[in-house]
Amino acid sequence: MTKQVAVVLAGCGVFDGSEIYETTLTLLRLDQLGIGYRCFAPDIEQHHVVNHLTQEAVEGESRNVLQESARLARGDIQPITELKADEFDAVIVPGGFGVAKNLSDFASAGDGMQVLEALKDALSGFREEEKPIGLMCIAPVLVPRLLGEGVAVTVGHDPSVSGAISAMGGLHRSCAVDEIVVDLEHRVVTTPAYMLATRISEAATGISKLVDRIDEMMD
Amino acid sequence: MTKQVAVVLAGCGVFDGSEIYETTLTLLRLDQLGIGYRCFAPDIEQHHVVNHLTQEAVEGESRNVLQESARLARGDIQPITELKADEFDAVIVPGGFGVAKNLSDFASAGDGMQVLEALKDALSGFREEEKPIGLMCIAPVLVPRLLGEGVAVTVGHDPSVSGAISAMGGLHRSCAVDEIVVDLEHRVVTTPAYMLATRISEAATGISKLVDRIDEMMD
Repeated sequence: MTKQVAVVLAGCGVFDGSEIYETTLTLLRLDQLGIGYRCFAPDIEQHHVVNHLTQEAVEGESRNVLQESARLARGDIQPITELKADEFDAVIVPGGFGVAKNLSDFASAGDGMQVLEALKDALSGFREEEKPIGLMCIAPVLVPRLLGEGVAVTVGHDPSVSGAISAMGGLHRSCAVDEIVVDLEHRVVTTPAYMLATRISEAATGISKLVDRIDEMMD
Repeated sequence: MTKQVAVVLAGCGVFDGSEIYETTLTLLRLDQLGIGYRCFAPDIEQHHVVNHLTQEAVEGESRNVLQESARLARGDIQPITELKADEFDAVIVPGGFGVAKNLSDFASAGDGMQVLEALKDALSGFREEEKPIGLMCIAPVLVPRLLGEGVAVTVGHDPSVSGAISAMGGLHRSCAVDEIVVDLEHRVVTTPAYMLATRISEAATGISKLVDRIDEMMD
């Protein structure tokens, strides 16, 4: 049987959705390894819409997270409520501000953040069955609320985000852009990606390492 | 001096803009080869907005091609009117329906199509200075109108699109998803990408070959 990985998206675009390069590079590496994947996203309105040319929020415009995420999946995506852990061997969450605005309210609430209930529900089965969970860029900030305290993750070396992770009971380890942090006990793999990357090839190196390690952990 | 390549975008999403994976894989390969790049797109309204979940056009919604393309460029993009051929060694146009809807009207007009004047203006310098031009997926359909008759290109083996290319005076060569067609005389490189790809790794192979060949031709 081909290994199967679920990929959780949060829109389409670094400033209000999932980071496009991180998502594409994740899917590329999965496919290069012969691993099957399916994409999922919440069927909710985006927190807001950002004009990526000016980085300003657009007044009065709304977009749906599932519909915009469908751009990143070439239309092949399902609502996150249909994500069943027993159909997959692992789950990966790329980064982008959508993680901090649509999958959680970290962007506004900081260490008082809440995580979307549908995401918690979807990931609880992976945690219970000890299936590997990969997160990149800002997504590791979800871990204390999503998977509980004491899980080691990285967001690179951003003092504000790493401080928030610590304040929520998580463990933060500094990490270079082309490396990964592995919490073997909790089966969690993280990489800084565009928290640190200044070039797409840098992000690709770390993301490929993350996917390769997830692949090994599914054996 | 580092080689510099211009990348022309047409929105963000396979059904109404630039194909996301094709664009990302192009930028990845350029960066892996140490080639600099800058992205450009026309500052015009999209032909229409497609809900990528249902593949249906959304009534009453409009989006700007430059703003949506900015998602694909992490905000780092310029209007195509600012693209000067003498600042670049080559130009690449990824595919996606945006090429046939925003950069031209091929999707509705077929072989009676017109190409956006701003794109013609931007690419005329590359043609005159014999700098390499790469196009993928549906984008080679632009070539007869953009670069003149008698240029060999591929869109894979789609009979309808290859027939239109022939009707406009172009030369179409069938090509596998992981291969490229090179017109050495006219300095044009094309690959089928998602005209044929069923997996992202297939598209990546052909796109990497296209970028590698463009790299050689810039020497």
